[in-house]
Order: sequence, then structure tokens, then C-alpha cells
Amino acid sequence: MLKLYIGNKNYSSWSMRPWVLLKQSVIAFEEVVVRFGDDFSAPGSEFKKTVLALNPAGTVPFLVDGDIVVSDTLAIAEYLAESFPDKLLWPTDKARRAQARSACAEMHGGFRAIRKHCGMNIEADLALQGELLLRDHADVRNELARLVQLWGGLLAQHGGPMLLGDFSIADAYFAPMASRLKTYALPVPSDIAAYVERVHALPSVTAWTDAARTEHDFVVEDEPYRLRS
Amino acid sequence: MLKLYIGNKNYSSWSMRPWVLLKQSVIAFEEVVVRFGDDFSAPGSEFKKTVLALNPAGTVPFLVDGDIVVSDTLAIAEYLAESFPDKLLWPTDKARRAQARSACAEMHGGFRAIRKHCGMNIEADLALQGELLLRDHADVRNELARLVQLWGGLLAQHGGPMLLGDFSIADAYFAPMASRLKTYALPVPSDIAAYVERVHALPSVTAWTDAARTEHDFVVEDEPYRLRS
Repeated sequence: MLKLYIGNKNYSSWSMRPWVLLKQSVIAFEEVVVRFGDDFSAPGSEFKKTVLALNPAGTVPFLVDGDIVVSDTLAIAEYLAESFPDKLLWPTDKARRAQARSACAEMHGGFRAIRKHCGMNIEADLALQGELLLRDHADVRNELARLVQLWGGLLAQHGGPMLLGDFSIADAYFAPMASRLKTYALPVPSDIAAYVERVHALPSVTAWTDAARTEHDFVVEDEPYRLRS
Repeated sequence: MLKLYIGNKNYSSWSMRPWVLLKQSVIAFEEVVVRFGDDFSAPGSEFKKTVLALNPAGTVPFLVDGDIVVSDTLAIAEYLAESFPDKLLWPTDKARRAQARSACAEMHGGFRAIRKHCGMNIEADLALQGELLLRDHADVRNELARLVQLWGGLLAQHGGPMLLGDFSIADAYFAPMASRLKTYALPVPSDIAAYVERVHALPSVTAWTDAARTEHDFVVEDEPYRLRS
């Protein structure tokens, strides 16, 4: 059976993407959580040792399928799309598929200010921090505007409910961004807010966020805005 | 005909990837260069205005195929692989293809210290700067070690001459890294140095680097280590 190695559900935005994709698409897999410790990103940490034993890139998530190890979220998504063609993980229409891939690749390499300043933290309420970040960081404001433009354009063009119409890899890819919009209470137009709610109502996303709220780990590296209570 | 919009050949590492991929695979396309100006990354710059008119992501490269605009290098690569299946842009073996995609995705989102400190600059000789960067930046050293491990592992496993055996998207993806190793004279083992030479000997890479050396633009934002002469 496929094995997906992931980090903490509360923090690991990259892990959330393939997990949501697999669950939402009803593809059977075994989940293996490699918990972040406070030193997890340091060379020689327990986390690094555990991961490096299987994945030389040293990161989660990664997928193990027999002898094949697929590291990195986008590679996992393409691997699954190929392996399960009947699940229609990408849109079947060529133009939509190109749009979906463009959006995912932009997410993969871009939105760096939001990724840096608004780390995923599902159980936290960081609304005040969100206001301060918007006040102080033009790059966060610009990226939020781009996200609204991107999502809004796709939703308007394809009519929803998901970005390309039906659920696809693109929605799994942006699920952590939807979570950040909630955690940091970033203001968005009503069409975007409604999409964020629809993403959170997906059974796969509900399952992930519910599990995240039960972890109660506190990883200092991922908590620039809270003190351990 | 396909149209590929790119930035300056001397600097634009992301543009180099799909250009090399298309050329090396003998896929016909029209090249449109949108030159970086000194203010190119600022909102409202000529560069941004030109790009945004066609690609809302505001970045190069992007590919135009009739009504379809594919932005972002990885999305372009997947789009081309699908559109030209006879060109075998990905390895045909499933496990190799997964390795190739994992490597490309790692390049797409990772190697950030090398990307930040060792910007592609084909015409420059920044060997001294390379020494200083290795002395002062542990993250550059760590990423260089990872690159050597990744390339070395693939070359040893598949026997070369390219990363997965025959030329594939992965080699196009890492061509700018091969260029950086030369510009900054970063020390690598002989198997890696030989691969760097083989990449530079590819007709597509030779054509790109020759063109880069004739540009003689000087974009301040991309020149942290040189003065305009």
C-alpha cells in the first residue's frame, strides 16, 4: 500500500496537500507522521535522521510506493495523477489542466512572503498578527491581492465550486492557503471567503484540520507569534 | 506556433529551462524576449506591464499556445511533455520519471540559498565571490553538498550521460545550476564537474549561453557583485 510520510498536521502545509488529495480522491494509503521536534530543521535532529533514512532530500512529505520514493509535493501529485488516471486528479480539459498546473507551480515557488510571515497554524487564532502583517509588509499585501486575483479569476471562469470546477490537485494545493486566511483573518472578497469555506467543508480538509487541533504540539520554530501556554 | 516569453538570457535562470528543453527536443517555437530593465521587478515597470498584459502571474517565462497561457516553468514542462509525447521529455520508466519529477520539484522550491546568493550570470566570472560565499554561508555549503549528492546519485544509478540516462526535463531544469557552478567556480567532485561540462556541450545550452554573452545588458538588481563597466 502507498505510504505517505508527513509532518505535524497543525504546521506542515506541504504535508497537508498530498494527504488531502489522497483522502478526497479516496485513494487508500497508510499515513506515517514524523513529528517535528523543536530542533527539527537542524542537521542531525531526530526528525532529519528519520526522514533522511528514506528520503535523501530530507523533507516531508514523501510518498513510498514499493521501491519508489517520490519526494516533494508537486512530484507526488503528478505521480498520483499518472498512477490513478480514473481519479481525474487534474482537470480533463487541456486548457483547464494547464491553468491548474500553472496555479500549482506558482504556489510551489511563489507566495513567499505569506509563507514566511503567515506559517500555517491551524489551531491558532492570529487575527491581530494578520492585521499587523498587512499593515507592515507590502509584499504580504501584494501576494494576498494576487491570490484573490488568481482564485477569483478561476472561480469566475469555471463557475466553481472548486477552482477548476470539480475538485482537483489545485484545490489540495491551495488548501493550506485557505487555512492561513482563516488563522490570520486576512480580509478577502466574499467570493473568495465562500471558496475558503467550501474548501474547509471538504471531508478531507475537515479530517485534517480536526486532527491538527488534537495534536497540541508546540514547535518553537513554527511559533513566531505565540508562547507555549 | 508556440511562443515562449523569456527574460534576459544572461540572468533569467527560469527562462533558460523551458528554452533549453524546447531547443534540445527540437520543438519549434517563437522566442519573445522581454528584457529586464533596472526597475523590472517593481510594480508598474515596463517589464511588468508587458508581461501582465498576457500573464497575470507577472513573471517570465510563460508559454502561449493559441488561447492557452501556461505560466511557470514546471507547468510549461508538464504541458510540453503531454503535448509532445513522442519527444519523451520525461523518462519512460515509471521509477525514473518519479525520480526526475522529485528532482525538478526540489529545484523548483528549494536550493534557495544558492538561488539567492549565486544568481545566474553567464557572462560573469565570480570565482572569488564563490569562495567568499562558501566561507560565509553554511546554507550555501549545505545546498551544494545536497546538489552533489543528488546529481551524483542519479548519475551513478543510471550511468549517465544525463541525470536519468538520456536527456530529460531534469537536465533542462538543472542547466542553470550547472551554469552557476561555473560562474562561481564552486568546487565539486570530478563526476559532477564532468556532468557540468556535458550539459554545457548540449547544443541547446551552447546556443543559450552564446546568446547570453552577446547581450551585454547590466541589470543592477541582478548584479550584487559587479559594477557597470
